[in-house]
Amino acid sequence: MKVDLVITHAHVLTMEGPGVGFIEDGAVAIKDHLIAAVGRTDELLANIKAERMINAKGKVVMPGFIDAHIHTGLSILRGVAQDINNWMQKGLWPFYKHVTVDDAMKGSLVNIIEGVKAGTTTFCDYDESMNKLVHNYVKVGARARLAEMINEIPHDIGKVPVGELYPFNPAIGERKLKNNLELMEKWHESENGRITVMFGPHGPDMMSKELLLEIREIAKSYDTKLHMHLAQGDREINQMVLRYGKRSIPFLAEINYLDERLIAVHLTEANDEETVTVAESGASMIYCAGSIGIIDGLVPPIIKFLQAGGVGALGSDQAPGNNNNNMFNEMKFAAILNKVKYGDPTVFPASLAMRMATIEAAKAIGLEHEIGSLRKGKKADIIIIDMEQPNLTPVIVSPIRNIVPNLVYSARGNEVETVIIDGKIIVEDGVVLTVDEKAAIKEAQEAAEKISLKAKDDIVVAESELLQFMEKGYL
Amino acid sequence: MKVDLVITHAHVLTMEGPGVGFIEDGAVAIKDHLIAAVGRTDELLANIKAERMINAKGKVVMPGFIDAHIHTGLSILRGVAQDINNWMQKGLWPFYKHVTVDDAMKGSLVNIIEGVKAGTTTFCDYDESMNKLVHNYVKVGARARLAEMINEIPHDIGKVPVGELYPFNPAIGERKLKNNLELMEKWHESENGRITVMFGPHGPDMMSKELLLEIREIAKSYDTKLHMHLAQGDREINQMVLRYGKRSIPFLAEINYLDERLIAVHLTEANDEETVTVAESGASMIYCAGSIGIIDGLVPPIIKFLQAGGVGALGSDQAPGNNNNNMFNEMKFAAILNKVKYGDPTVFPASLAMRMATIEAAKAIGLEHEIGSLRKGKKADIIIIDMEQPNLTPVIVSPIRNIVPNLVYSARGNEVETVIIDGKIIVEDGVVLTVDEKAAIKEAQEAAEKISLKAKDDIVVAESELLQFMEKGYL
Repeated sequence: MKVDLVITHAHVLTMEGPGVGFIEDGAVAIKDHLIAAVGRTDELLANIKAERMINAKGKVVMPGFIDAHIHTGLSILRGVAQDINNWMQKGLWPFYKHVTVDDAMKGSLVNIIEGVKAGTTTFCDYDESMNKLVHNYVKVGARARLAEMINEIPHDIGKVPVGELYPFNPAIGERKLKNNLELMEKWHESENGRITVMFGPHGPDMMSKELLLEIREIAKSYDTKLHMHLAQGDREINQMVLRYGKRSIPFLAEINYLDERLIAVHLTEANDEETVTVAESGASMIYCAGSIGIIDGLVPPIIKFLQAGGVGALGSDQAPGNNNNNMFNEMKFAAILNKVKYGDPTVFPASLAMRMATIEAAKAIGLEHEIGSLRKGKKADIIIIDMEQPNLTPVIVSPIRNIVPNLVYSARGNEVETVIIDGKIIVEDGVVLTVDEKAAIKEAQEAAEKISLKAKDDIVVAESELLQFMEKGYL
Repeated sequence: MKVDLVITHAHVLTMEGPGVGFIEDGAVAIKDHLIAAVGRTDELLANIKAERMINAKGKVVMPGFIDAHIHTGLSILRGVAQDINNWMQKGLWPFYKHVTVDDAMKGSLVNIIEGVKAGTTTFCDYDESMNKLVHNYVKVGARARLAEMINEIPHDIGKVPVGELYPFNPAIGERKLKNNLELMEKWHESENGRITVMFGPHGPDMMSKELLLEIREIAKSYDTKLHMHLAQGDREINQMVLRYGKRSIPFLAEINYLDERLIAVHLTEANDEETVTVAESGASMIYCAGSIGIIDGLVPPIIKFLQAGGVGALGSDQAPGNNNNNMFNEMKFAAILNKVKYGDPTVFPASLAMRMATIEAAKAIGLEHEIGSLRKGKKADIIIIDMEQPNLTPVIVSPIRNIVPNLVYSARGNEVETVIIDGKIIVEDGVVLTVDEKAAIKEAQEAAEKISLKAKDDIVVAESELLQFMEKGYL
């Protein structure tokens, strides 16, 4: 067989089977957009001729990571709102109200570069203005599974006193749903299938029951998934109780919203019974360890969810509270925060973290037939990790292997040397080939400086503790 | 004034005052081994002529990090023992028993390179064979505050059944104390004061009361500190109760061991009352967020300790359980694990993490007169951080600054561009200038492979769960 590229002599983690699917002295062959073969180097080379060979001796070859929940449009505000209560209203909002679509685009591009360089090949981006942001994915060459964030909440929602019901504006909901429909019609299965589209209700508290149900019917008609925040905070739960006399999950159960179509994000406020309800419904759960740790100081019930048989994945959420979008960071935090939650070092082993950033994530977002593991016929989304780094030394393969623990507990992302997406090399020697990284950073920096100028008075109005931090010299 | 080097136009974090001591468009001048001036670039340049100038526009300049507790001699076993109970006996020991001094040296060198490249300029190394390991610090050019780990426990301690008292062998204690004394006589205040020596009792359960007291008297006579594990695990507490009828901290209080001379490491098992006792005694506390999270699934009582007025610092502990030695990792985990412990995002703000890795650490280890902040007359231990990175974009300085939150919550260590120790450039453009990194990694790798071969049968004897992980494909 003649192929385009063979990567040889690697420590291959296929992520097939129940664990990490290790192959010693392994190789992967790529033809066009697909994986043509996976196996031991000697066996594979016996039957294959390749246009190009990469000798990955001593390196790790594995499927690219899937970031199952990210809002790249927010990354222009990275780091403006840490260590405070009321992150959204006191921290983010004074800046966010001044962010234009153009600003969001610039931040998003840098954010996608950040993710790709750290080995993320698929982004489940869930944001406003997705009809614009999608162009960044086209440009970078990353795989994207996109949803427009749909709600019917007025832009000045921050003014509604805590404890009062949000007003709904159906015109807003209609417009945002229309955006999601346009995204679907124009982009679903485009770019050789690299871009796919889902529908994105913002949360059960963010729109009328009628709109929730309408979106679900539309998703059904396109046979795609719903990407939705669920039980993401006490404010959501309060809104639901006030409006319907029910907490979010019992409400959704009643209207038959919980099933395989739903990707439920966060579940921060879900109690044990509710968590089991979601898991047993077939809905998947996205766990954002870093962002929920920083913003809320909480560890969502992912272990309970998995124990109840649910499919779980990891997501990096948004840069203004995390503050990075890097699946190595998420794997490490997911594992350690859960060990600490249960006071037990055996909880959330490294292999589980790896799976939830690859094959389990592919299942969770409905792309397991295409990505998430190295198997003949799947899309060629592959990363090569340089292990010859001080923080990954030594590499031991017998009598036990230390590769997976060190990738989860010590790698940072910058060890990713090569990133292949849909058969094309996007990152080589740590450099993004498809876009100009320096120029992207410069543009985002200039946009952020303009936003900051405009936010000057709003920060004062918000009475943000951050101003006190400035006065005290903490920032 | 004529100086050797001026770094100009930077975002300077002096770490002076109650917070991070930010200077906009700041500069630092270095002459010989010392900081000659710190201030605004324009003011500083008015009075100074420099041999060399570094324009650090857009970059951060700050004091190098202090890793207040590290065992570099163990790093040759990075990653061999994760996600199990009984980390030491079932995981580490089958390998550790085969580690020679030469192996430890090779691992240590890679470990120091890892730390230095991530901005650590001072290492409180606490290990066996320190008379050998010290040569790595001389070679790399890092600042080191060293202690030989002293105990009188036989090497085959792993065989003692849980619940039985450890046997003490006074000959072992004598030999190890002699090593610490030799280290002191030969190396204290050597290399222009870059190397200093403390004494290192392994833990209150690891030797007789007489030897504990003898070491304390010797430390007094040299006017240096004691670096000691304290309340580091339930096994220690059980030994103390069995031997003395008292838990570790009440025992040490009774024999007047708790005072400014003591650097108490971990306090994992200290209850609230004991934590306050240690804090009020004047002893400092080292908090190792990553290692205790991974190995024990616990968050030690650092917040309680600080609330009681204690001086606390961060440490990275050892590579076989952490699995990295990088103060960016420690700052982030310290902050987020404590937010989660208290369910409160305002706990452990970024500025506190920064201080505990710099100026508070200098106080904790007794070097605040020399290092930990940028002040005229202090040692020139300085790092320059490149902020033009996707994960650190954008940099905002007004109306609030996002620099410190992004350094703590998003930086990984590889953004450190330049590392200056004792006035000498040790790392430039991310490359270590003083030693051959590739060669060091290769030597450590070869040593680890030999150890692994020898450990083959011992892993089976230990009945380690890691072998089951191998069989199931989890590693």
